[in-house]
Amino acid sequence: MSGKNGRAGLTILVLGADGYIGWPMAMHLSRLGHRVVAVDNLARRKWDREGGTYSLLPLRTMPQRIDRWRQVSGQEIEWRRVDLRDGTAVDELFAEFNPHAVIHFAEQRSAPFSMVDRAHAEMTQVNNVVGTLNVLFAIRDRVPDCHLIKLGTMGEYGTPNIDIEEGYIDIEHNGRRDRLPFPKVPGSFYHLSKVHDSNNIHFATRAWGVRATDLNQGVVYGFETEETALHEDLHTRFDFDSIWGTALNRFCVQAAVGQPLTVYGKGGQTRGFLDIRDTMACITLALENPAERGECRVFNQFTEQFSVLQLAELVARVRGEHGLKTNISHVQNPRVEAEEHYYNAKHQRLLDLGLQPHLLGDTLLETVIEMVERHAARVDPVLLEQPSVNWKSGGNEVWDRYSKRRASMSRRAAAPAGGPVRS
Amino acid sequence: MSGKNGRAGLTILVLGADGYIGWPMAMHLSRLGHRVVAVDNLARRKWDREGGTYSLLPLRTMPQRIDRWRQVSGQEIEWRRVDLRDGTAVDELFAEFNPHAVIHFAEQRSAPFSMVDRAHAEMTQVNNVVGTLNVLFAIRDRVPDCHLIKLGTMGEYGTPNIDIEEGYIDIEHNGRRDRLPFPKVPGSFYHLSKVHDSNNIHFATRAWGVRATDLNQGVVYGFETEETALHEDLHTRFDFDSIWGTALNRFCVQAAVGQPLTVYGKGGQTRGFLDIRDTMACITLALENPAERGECRVFNQFTEQFSVLQLAELVARVRGEHGLKTNISHVQNPRVEAEEHYYNAKHQRLLDLGLQPHLLGDTLLETVIEMVERHAARVDPVLLEQPSVNWKSGGNEVWDRYSKRRASMSRRAAAPAGGPVRS
Repeated sequence: MSGKNGRAGLTILVLGADGYIGWPMAMHLSRLGHRVVAVDNLARRKWDREGGTYSLLPLRTMPQRIDRWRQVSGQEIEWRRVDLRDGTAVDELFAEFNPHAVIHFAEQRSAPFSMVDRAHAEMTQVNNVVGTLNVLFAIRDRVPDCHLIKLGTMGEYGTPNIDIEEGYIDIEHNGRRDRLPFPKVPGSFYHLSKVHDSNNIHFATRAWGVRATDLNQGVVYGFETEETALHEDLHTRFDFDSIWGTALNRFCVQAAVGQPLTVYGKGGQTRGFLDIRDTMACITLALENPAERGECRVFNQFTEQFSVLQLAELVARVRGEHGLKTNISHVQNPRVEAEEHYYNAKHQRLLDLGLQPHLLGDTLLETVIEMVERHAARVDPVLLEQPSVNWKSGGNEVWDRYSKRRASMSRRAAAPAGGPVRS
Repeated sequence: MSGKNGRAGLTILVLGADGYIGWPMAMHLSRLGHRVVAVDNLARRKWDREGGTYSLLPLRTMPQRIDRWRQVSGQEIEWRRVDLRDGTAVDELFAEFNPHAVIHFAEQRSAPFSMVDRAHAEMTQVNNVVGTLNVLFAIRDRVPDCHLIKLGTMGEYGTPNIDIEEGYIDIEHNGRRDRLPFPKVPGSFYHLSKVHDSNNIHFATRAWGVRATDLNQGVVYGFETEETALHEDLHTRFDFDSIWGTALNRFCVQAAVGQPLTVYGKGGQTRGFLDIRDTMACITLALENPAERGECRVFNQFTEQFSVLQLAELVARVRGEHGLKTNISHVQNPRVEAEEHYYNAKHQRLLDLGLQPHLLGDTLLETVIEMVERHAARVDPVLLEQPSVNWKSGGNEVWDRYSKRRASMSRRAAAPAGGPVRS
């Protein structure tokens, strides 16, 4: 197998390779003929154990996944358990592999988790900011030509009353002009951590000539890529609880178990979305068309915009076509956010590189709901209680029930049969 | 004594009260009749000991200063040694005093120090960001009506090619309008930490209704306020080395000891400046005219703009008037920054509140140079070697000489007579 544009055979570090997107990405790049080093500290599994959450799809350990991948594909993925907060370990990792590119997913990525309390807010910001700083210093000191592909989020922008551009905006002010970073109004300590990262990365490109692509990704949906579909041991995560799951996953699970779809507030909150298969394609396009030295390139990585209410209505309609009545209920919004707002975010640059989007259709939604129905016995109703974290006051009584869930049960009984596998 | 506008008698936490501005501010507010709690972890003295730097003006310990203040003024300043990174301690501090206002100077504030190496970069960002988060959570949980007055820096903005507004800018884009945070392009890991803080504070005002004033301060000069002048035990810091000193202080010391004034690069770098007495006035104005609940108010706190070369020429001219010839030499710029650029920063809002600026004049410069001449025996020539930190590669051989300075001498001999007092 070989990559496009003659760029197969690159050495690529995938940081956060145990995560929802990291693991499929590692396999995808391996299949394209690259040397892939999968790096993770397994923090996401630890947070699951601490918080009583788990993936609906059973997960294998990293060594098991990599063994299975070798059997299925004939390709080797190398595995390193490294915590990015350990600057010396990160430096050694870059010195050992001299990567051509690094794809950095290795962050705490839940907004509600960052809003639980002071400790969670600070852990999120320190983990994400220090990890990224360690990567930037390792690039400077070990492989200055390495291309950093960093996952940001569309949530960095917030919901301004003007069109959202891709990273920068041309401003004319009092008769003078400049092109400046797009002003951001992020809505949680998690989203703020990504803005801090973006600012640090932008500086490293200017001061040190680092080449960086900052991907402001929308909400990713779907559970299957070409590679995860090859064997059930290669599955990636599917989260549906109120900490780690997205609204669309929650709706699919609620529909599958016959509960009403819970929309936070009016549901006019509009965001960008994309299929996990398009995430694979976008990151591959960024890899194959690297940023220049000293360039901090920003792409908005999503394919369609939906409001939360539109998503609920989509799920309800798909169910209705099978004769199943699904109700939509509006619950009090735990977040501080606009529920009706203008939203028009540009997302042209990845299309210009050749992205061919998979749009959200009935078939995809049906596939997700069918998957959930197959695993319905694994759905712990406690995890469908919504929401568990309030933006003003932090973790609430539902959060306490999540957390006590693990403590009050034996490890074996903690999740329904086939529950989260400890790494 | 009483404050203006009937606002005497407030309880005020001064965080970073052992610092250059923090200590004079604590005395100033005490003299206005407020209950002042001085808080510091003495990190600045520790960094001096580690790095071989010191204040040209000898400093007393915090207990000595507070004793002297009591004798001179009849006022009591309370003293708490607290590290803001300790969230529990910060929470307890706010619970104990229920402050009406908190003035937050307690950050690592040197750009070169943040650029020494990875460890210094990360310490700076974690120290500043976590400390401020702890303050925000303590306000939310203990005194939601407390007014946070936070010291930022004009350096957060960088040098855009458009006028710099005070915190926010009205943007018209593709036929729509919004008022958004002014886009920032900070020039060091230190400046970035202040941008991270500003973003976190802005969020806390929106999510929790915190009332905040974010003061983007220019470069402060001068060593004397009404209160520090009362007794030599009440002096504040005067830094002149390449880590902690400003260009103007460096020029005054170089002039006093007969060395050429070293301008980094072309010297067209233009910044905002203010007299330390105006800092006292600005912060007092912010205190007496608090932000509203949920408001993140931003003031640009400076009174005049100068380029680095203009400052050198000012110092040379003042010396020339006394018949002393002073040369200006251009050295290679260790920083990554524009050396010729547009710069027009607004600073109207503090004037609107009644600020009456002390402008930089010959008398002030002569006073500073005379003070340096009185303490010329304390100037270690090693600390006039410039610069010690390079933006691309970090601490250089001068930095090593600074650091070895302390290690290679006995503690007593480490600084010339009357050197830094250990707290």
